[in-house]
Amino acid sequence: MASSLRDEAGQFAAEALSVDAYLGGRLRLAQPLRGYRAGIDPVLLAAAVPAMAGQRVLDLGCGAGAALFCLATRIPGLLLTGVERQADYAALAMRNAEENGLAARIATADLAALPADLRQERFDHILANPPYWQAEARDAAQDPGREAALCEVTPLATWIKVAARRLAPAGQLHMVHRAERLPDILTALHGRLGSIELKPLAPRTGRAARLILVRARKGGRAGFRLHAPLILHDGAQHVADGEDYTPAVRAMLRDAAPLDFEACA
Amino acid sequence: MASSLRDEAGQFAAEALSVDAYLGGRLRLAQPLRGYRAGIDPVLLAAAVPAMAGQRVLDLGCGAGAALFCLATRIPGLLLTGVERQADYAALAMRNAEENGLAARIATADLAALPADLRQERFDHILANPPYWQAEARDAAQDPGREAALCEVTPLATWIKVAARRLAPAGQLHMVHRAERLPDILTALHGRLGSIELKPLAPRTGRAARLILVRARKGGRAGFRLHAPLILHDGAQHVADGEDYTPAVRAMLRDAAPLDFEACA
Repeated sequence: MASSLRDEAGQFAAEALSVDAYLGGRLRLAQPLRGYRAGIDPVLLAAAVPAMAGQRVLDLGCGAGAALFCLATRIPGLLLTGVERQADYAALAMRNAEENGLAARIATADLAALPADLRQERFDHILANPPYWQAEARDAAQDPGREAALCEVTPLATWIKVAARRLAPAGQLHMVHRAERLPDILTALHGRLGSIELKPLAPRTGRAARLILVRARKGGRAGFRLHAPLILHDGAQHVADGEDYTPAVRAMLRDAAPLDFEACA
Repeated sequence: MASSLRDEAGQFAAEALSVDAYLGGRLRLAQPLRGYRAGIDPVLLAAAVPAMAGQRVLDLGCGAGAALFCLATRIPGLLLTGVERQADYAALAMRNAEENGLAARIATADLAALPADLRQERFDHILANPPYWQAEARDAAQDPGREAALCEVTPLATWIKVAARRLAPAGQLHMVHRAERLPDILTALHGRLGSIELKPLAPRTGRAARLILVRARKGGRAGFRLHAPLILHDGAQHVADGEDYTPAVRAMLRDAAPLDFEACA
C-alpha cells in the first residue's frame, strides 16, 4: 500500500491530501488527492437518516468519514462509530473527526470480522456506501487504496448480513448503491430486515435512476415502498459548466437539509 | 361457483355481463358486472410489450382477456394463447376473442399444471397480471369468482417460475403488480430471467408508485434498470369528477399507444 504520497507509517502524507468543504463549509474533510474522494452520494446518504441525539450510529466502510460526519454535522449529539478496512483511510477518518470537533470511535477492521467489542453492540442507525464496482467488471484504478474503496472485495450480501446483525430492534439501515444492484440488495435483505423503502436518485426528470437509497428496519413489518425519485439536476440535459443541482438537492448539499423520502420535489 | 347470475352450465348469464370499450372503442370486452373487471392495469401491461407480428404470446391468468386482446388490437398478427383457471372467465375470453375477430387459443387450466401441449411450447412474450391481494391480508370479496381473480391462490413465485420455463430464448416476460411486491418479484426472478427493467407507475408526480411494470428476458445479461416512473394522473391531487390521466397515459388507453420504458413523460 506504500506510495510516494504516503509517509513511513503508511499514512497519507500532507501533500497527498486536499481539504474539501461539505455542507456549505460546516464540515471540512481531508481526503487523498489520488484515491477515493467523496462525491454527493455519502452526503445524500447522511441526509436520509432520521437519527436523533443520543442514538448510536455505525458507518460500515466509513472511508475518510464523509457520510458519518455529514450526519453528525446535521444532527449533533450522536454516538459515532466508523469501521474501515484500510488503515490509512481509518486514520484519516480519526483526523477528520478531530479537526471538526466530533467525538468518534473509528475501528480499523474488515466488516466481515468486526472486533469483539463491536460485536457486543447494537446500533440505532447503520450507514453503508459500499464500493460500487465489482473487480471483474472494470479496469483497476491506478491507486490501490482507491481501487479497494471502489471495488467490491466483501460481497454486498455480507454488508447487509453484518448490518442486520448489528442493528438494535427497530434500528434502521440506510444504504446508497448503484440502481443496478437493487435485485441483489433486496434478495440479501429478504428475511433479515423489513419495512424496506426505496428512494431512486435520478440524474434528471424522466431519466432512469443511476443510484438508489435503500432504507430497511430491523423487525419492520410494513410493506415495501417505492418512492418518487429524487431528481439531482435541473433541466433535460447538462448545459452549463457550473453545477445545476435542483433546489432540494442543493439544500441537502449546502444547508444540511434532510432528505425526506416522502417529499415530492 | 354457481350464483343467480350464472346459467346452468356455470357460465355468466347475459344479464350478468356488461360490454366495455377499451382502446378508444377498438376493443370491446364482455365482463361480469359483479366479478373481476379490468381497469387500466392490463391495458398498460399490454402497451409495454414490444411484440412483433408472427410472435407467440402467452397470457398467464388471462381472465376475460383484457391484456391479451389489448395487445392483439395494437399489434395484429400475433399468435395468441391465454390460460385461465376459472372456466367461466376462460369461456368469456373465448367469446371476447370471437366478438373482436381475434383468433386465440384459450386453455382452462391452472398455470401450475399446464396442459401437455402448452408444456411443449415456447413463447416470445408472456404477460402476467396476477391477483394483487393475498387471501389472509384482506376481507373476502362477495363474489367467489372475483375473489379468485383478486386473491393470490397460486404463489407469485410460481407465476414467475412457470413463465421462465415457457419463454423461448430471448423471450420476454412482462408483469404488472403492486409496487409492494417488488422484493418478492426480484427474488423469484433471480437466477431465472435477466435484463430486468422496472417501470414504476405513480398516481401523480412526486408520489410513491402503487403499481409496477416489470420486464425480464430469458437469458438476458444486461444489468437491472430502474426507469423514471410513468405518471398516471395530472396535477398534485384529484380535483374534478372526470378523468385526469396524463396525455401519455391517455394515448395508451384511448389510442393504443405503446408504453416506452425509456420515455421521459
